[in-house]
Amino acid sequence: MNDAIRMTIDEVFDTTKELLLVQGFSENHANAIANTVTAAERDECRHHGLFRISFYVNSLLAGHASGTAEPTISDLAPGVIRIDAKRGFSPLALERGYAPLIERAKSQGVAVLAINNALSVSALWPETERLAEEGLCSFAFVSAAPYVAPAGGTKPLFGTNPMAFSWPRPGKYPLVFDQAASASARGEIQIRLRDGKPLEEGWAIGPDGKPTTDPREALAGAQLPFGGVKGSSIALMVELLAGPLVGDKLSFESGEDDKAGTGAPCGGELIIAIDPARCVEGGDRAAQLAHGELLFSAILEQEGTRLPSDRRYQARERTAEEGVMVPRSLYENLQSLKSGVKKINLQAYEGDHVLAKQSA
Amino acid sequence: MNDAIRMTIDEVFDTTKELLLVQGFSENHANAIANTVTAAERDECRHHGLFRISFYVNSLLAGHASGTAEPTISDLAPGVIRIDAKRGFSPLALERGYAPLIERAKSQGVAVLAINNALSVSALWPETERLAEEGLCSFAFVSAAPYVAPAGGTKPLFGTNPMAFSWPRPGKYPLVFDQAASASARGEIQIRLRDGKPLEEGWAIGPDGKPTTDPREALAGAQLPFGGVKGSSIALMVELLAGPLVGDKLSFESGEDDKAGTGAPCGGELIIAIDPARCVEGGDRAAQLAHGELLFSAILEQEGTRLPSDRRYQARERTAEEGVMVPRSLYENLQSLKSGVKKINLQAYEGDHVLAKQSA
Repeated sequence: MNDAIRMTIDEVFDTTKELLLVQGFSENHANAIANTVTAAERDECRHHGLFRISFYVNSLLAGHASGTAEPTISDLAPGVIRIDAKRGFSPLALERGYAPLIERAKSQGVAVLAINNALSVSALWPETERLAEEGLCSFAFVSAAPYVAPAGGTKPLFGTNPMAFSWPRPGKYPLVFDQAASASARGEIQIRLRDGKPLEEGWAIGPDGKPTTDPREALAGAQLPFGGVKGSSIALMVELLAGPLVGDKLSFESGEDDKAGTGAPCGGELIIAIDPARCVEGGDRAAQLAHGELLFSAILEQEGTRLPSDRRYQARERTAEEGVMVPRSLYENLQSLKSGVKKINLQAYEGDHVLAKQSA
Repeated sequence: MNDAIRMTIDEVFDTTKELLLVQGFSENHANAIANTVTAAERDECRHHGLFRISFYVNSLLAGHASGTAEPTISDLAPGVIRIDAKRGFSPLALERGYAPLIERAKSQGVAVLAINNALSVSALWPETERLAEEGLCSFAFVSAAPYVAPAGGTKPLFGTNPMAFSWPRPGKYPLVFDQAASASARGEIQIRLRDGKPLEEGWAIGPDGKPTTDPREALAGAQLPFGGVKGSSIALMVELLAGPLVGDKLSFESGEDDKAGTGAPCGGELIIAIDPARCVEGGDRAAQLAHGELLFSAILEQEGTRLPSDRRYQARERTAEEGVMVPRSLYENLQSLKSGVKKINLQAYEGDHVLAKQSA
């Protein structure tokens, strides 16, 4: 059962797009989601790749997501663009937002994109990388289902609440980091439950509020923020930015909204884009970027360091040649979805309840 | 020698302003710095209060800082204001920046303030709190002298690189956090050296790159980021925002620039201010802030939690009644500076070299 099928990057895209169309997504959504899933597989971010297809399809079948809603765009201020995703998944909303956000960031110096009512199950590095390719420095913030206790507390309240940041590099892939405010990914806890392995210390507390390394206790209790109080502050900031600031849900409200238990939170996302060339007298972007390179060189001079995203970019080079390896069970599930079967193979689904069922 | 003198908040301000004038600061700078020092004492952030006066005066006497430079302001884009502090301390530059930044954030929805050539030895919460009092959500980023190794590395490169964030609260002090990207404050390591106490694990590495709990080894080696790789990413982000983005120094360049070893880095600061009411359709600020309060209530319902800054605000209420206790040696040093003595009492100075001397 551990064997795997090799797929080329093009096959990943074609399979994903076709099955999404068959399952009822519109051409626009199928295309945008397939691009996002393919980018994740290409960079070997497998949690956000083909494994995620179950979230997309489950949410559609459960009536939690729209597969056809066309995002609408509005101008809230010279520096603020809003996109209403209307309960569609975020990739199409983002695709519609790039051009106006980039235009505003360059004309105003700084601009924000407020996305509402979007289902988010993808990573944040694609949008920040895209903005950096346009020469912009950018941030992205999104909240999630409530899994993480605030520092000092004992109950889940915050989402894993990732934030991403990007900085352009001349002639190179941009510098990007995309990191959860939780000490570990939730998927990693689920995988350790499946594999019967303990967690690292500091990742979680049990339902009694006490530290635990037992994955089952952790999933029934709460994850912890990274870095204690400071990581908890970051999680709190992300809640405010992706929620009240853009007039959208807090993580616990997204959890309540997900009545079908799909694990795909519906809520807001905030993106901030800044044009470096508008932040200095005379605007010499090349000099600013060269200055960034000086910092990166000084980091890499130290043995044992690497830049955020370097592993992703190495994977990208490799998978362009070699394709990606997909577990046979997942591959077969994709084929089944493509043939029109309107049912998720639960073995391929990462959600807590499924893993809990497997391990019960 | 451990006795202390009680000073009222007004006395802190008057003493500070007078001694700064006597030492050669202009009326404008003396006033702005005295406000900043007084706010820190009032909130019992003693590292940034009267103890810091040695940094201000030392830097002036060493010719590292200007005590009289008038900051100049320029418009770089509809959403970008620049202030050149001309090697003056940051409080006056900030004071000049608030009005235009607030006006732009409200008219554009989002705006940034890029500060250049400012000496920064104060905290970042005063500026973010001030912006939140105007109903804005804000971020501030500043780099510092190079003390912190990148994750995986062994040599100091990043500053302790604080970032601050604020969110307005109706009828209450704003929610503000202001936290270094290092695992501990440098001052805390210095204090443990003085007191002969070990450090916590994970704070630092020695000159050999190995973990240490010895304060002397730590000061000769490097501090570590909080939260491992994720905190290191935050430190890297702050370096880029306060340096290349605004066309100013990286931490290691600020270190090289500080030829007199004053410990007061000269460089950039970036502030981002967003008007929540411009980020939602219809702009109902009251509803957005009420939504934030819902989150804060949910946090505080959990026993063991508190909101960032709550301790500062409690101190603020207390010191308004009781004043602050100032160590006699520091108090006497302040009186001596006020009487015109142009020499720092090194016993009151926190810099590494002084503590190293004390403990040698």
